[in-house]
Amino acid sequence: MLKLLFADRIENWPAYEPALKSALAEMGIAAEILLPPADPGAIDYIVYSPRGPVQDFTAYTRTKAVLNLWAGVERVVGNPTLTQPLCRMVDEGLERGMVEWVTGHVLRAHLDIDFFLAHQDGVWRQAGHVPPLARDRSVVVLGLGALGGACATTLASLGFAVTGWSRTPKTLAGVTCLSGPEGLRAALGRAQILVTVLPNTPETTDLLNRETLALMPRGAVILNPGRGTLIDDAALLAALDTGRIAHATLDVFRVEPLPPDHPYWAHPKVTVTPHIAAETRPASAARVIAENIRRFEAGETPLHLVDRARGY
Amino acid sequence: MLKLLFADRIENWPAYEPALKSALAEMGIAAEILLPPADPGAIDYIVYSPRGPVQDFTAYTRTKAVLNLWAGVERVVGNPTLTQPLCRMVDEGLERGMVEWVTGHVLRAHLDIDFFLAHQDGVWRQAGHVPPLARDRSVVVLGLGALGGACATTLASLGFAVTGWSRTPKTLAGVTCLSGPEGLRAALGRAQILVTVLPNTPETTDLLNRETLALMPRGAVILNPGRGTLIDDAALLAALDTGRIAHATLDVFRVEPLPPDHPYWAHPKVTVTPHIAAETRPASAARVIAENIRRFEAGETPLHLVDRARGY
Ligand SMILES: NC(=O)c1ccc[n+]([C@@H]2O[C@H](COP(=O)([O-])OP(=O)(O)OC[C@H]3O[C@@H](n4cnc5c(N)ncnc54)[C@H](OP(=O)(O)O)[C@@H]3O)[C@@H](O)[C@H]2O)c1
Ligand SMILES: NC(=O)c1ccc[n+]([C@@H]2O[C@H](COP(=O)([O-])OP(=O)(O)OC[C@H]3O[C@@H](n4cnc5c(N)ncnc54)[C@H](OP(=O)(O)O)[C@@H]3O)[C@@H](O)[C@H]2O)c1
Repeated sequence: MLKLLFADRIENWPAYEPALKSALAEMGIAAEILLPPADPGAIDYIVYSPRGPVQDFTAYTRTKAVLNLWAGVERVVGNPTLTQPLCRMVDEGLERGMVEWVTGHVLRAHLDIDFFLAHQDGVWRQAGHVPPLARDRSVVVLGLGALGGACATTLASLGFAVTGWSRTPKTLAGVTCLSGPEGLRAALGRAQILVTVLPNTPETTDLLNRETLALMPRGAVILNPGRGTLIDDAALLAALDTGRIAHATLDVFRVEPLPPDHPYWAHPKVTVTPHIAAETRPASAARVIAENIRRFEAGETPLHLVDRARGY
Repeated sequence: MLKLLFADRIENWPAYEPALKSALAEMGIAAEILLPPADPGAIDYIVYSPRGPVQDFTAYTRTKAVLNLWAGVERVVGNPTLTQPLCRMVDEGLERGMVEWVTGHVLRAHLDIDFFLAHQDGVWRQAGHVPPLARDRSVVVLGLGALGGACATTLASLGFAVTGWSRTPKTLAGVTCLSGPEGLRAALGRAQILVTVLPNTPETTDLLNRETLALMPRGAVILNPGRGTLIDDAALLAALDTGRIAHATLDVFRVEPLPPDHPYWAHPKVTVTPHIAAETRPASAARVIAENIRRFEAGETPLHLVDRARGY
């Protein structure tokens, strides 16, 4: 009988308990799920979130893997007490949420929906307000992983002219894929709508800064559902004020909740959403956890193993 | 040498002249395009719009067909002087525009984007504001023709639970297709988001009225990019006021431009867009016109022939 520790916030237990139990049963895994406090020396697997109670992994001597419930690992990947393998979450529910948020906000910008919402004033403004077709709109997605890749191919299937960018070269149906520093310059130069779906790592910190924002076409729109650290906030505010960037919709921030007095809240060209783009869904996430436990037990290659040197 | 009359508004001539000339040339059709006034007795085909100068077709004795530049034909289909075949416009550019408008506004409702736009107040509202996934959102599309069918399949491809409704039974990938009066009741009963893409005919007039709106789930959202006549305006305003309908986004109206004092403009639960959902695009529309001329000349079945008794 394997022993799992549920080390997410206790509020999430009611949703995860049935999901984990049924996913483990379906996979034929005999396991008991413990809640903290539990004897660390007895735990085989930790179902983990950075918001949960476990910060020090030293005493988890028997633990074979730490299975993160989040896609992002920046709050655990550098933990010096973590010697066990770390897996991140790639969950179909999380992916669908991200694709829907990104597609919705890309179309909002493409169709200039905010303009119409702000002009319900009795004036029929038709001339000059029929949007171009998606094929004449250049959208750039930075990050072509589990989430960014799905966003890029969905936007391409809607007809947008999509360019994607990643660290290593990629091939994605209907998407012009670029990589490396030269690729970034080329991508930013054509980004009428820019979507950042990168992880938070030392390399991606302040990727959008004064210099890189200046490469973007005047009037570009930015959507950031990736991580707050991707953007130099002062540089973005300055670019919004000069009009280089027309609007930014931000779901993630360096400090969350975004403090009430942060200039983003009151800025007329910024829309804040409260880190709701994509949420791990217990049913599908529990199946990923159970599958990974099966793989570890069978000595197979686990899914979504984090490269700790790379940081994601 | 065939003689075509360009009977749209003259402002549209600069966009259509090169498009029509190159489409005719590509099709190998020798034709001269005349602008009004021209001798009606000499015209082989009329490239028509209801906003153009031709209202009386009596003198066009030689004319083999009237080729409408619009998808909707309600302003010409009942014209008693029209004895020639009437074709409506089915244009790939028009279709893409409609799909983009509908998908954008469905996602806007699905993600509750208006809520976030209205709450940029420093309060981080996360709990209860993560939207459900598209697969848990029931969208109903009334009208499964060239435009409604493309909207329904695109929404299904994004994961929405899509039900469609048409006069005659249909089969569409990923869409639950209903028809007839019983089908309408079933469709409305599950419409969390309702999209009306029907033509204006005697049968569709006031389709959404006090009785049918009462069949919809409380808090449903309506998008109407079809025709203004589909909705009994007073009934919709009443349903918005009781909360039965949470919001309506309307692109088409009984009177256009929508008069400045119309209650829709000022209503907090209504978004007006100025008939911009889908526009005929000259390049692709000209190819449809040229192909139809080729078909008429060759004695083949024309595309998109209007059934004048049916009205669309
Ligand atoms: N807002 C929300 O609700 C929410 C929810 C979930 C996740 N997220 C964020 O979304 C991020 C992406 O998730 P994912 O599952 O798609 O991650 P992933 O599968 O690990 O993909 C990461 C992508 O970023 C690229 N990348 C990483 N470092 C790079 C660099 N230095 N230069 C260029 N490209 C780089 C990777 O390139 P390679 O393909 O070459 O490795 C990969 O394409 C997460 O890390 C998290 O921060 C946000
Ligand atoms: N807002 C804009 O910018 C814009 C632009 C273009 C068009 N439009 C509107 O969009 C409408 C639809 O265009 P379309 O090209 O898709 O037309 P279409 O190909 O003729 O399709 C019409 C659809 O409506 C259904 N229908 C018609 N009468 C019905 C009835 N009494 N009960 C149930 N279903 C009925 C038809 O059913 P069957 O399949 O059984 O025949 C068909 O599925 C146009 O007529 C126009 O009013 C608006």
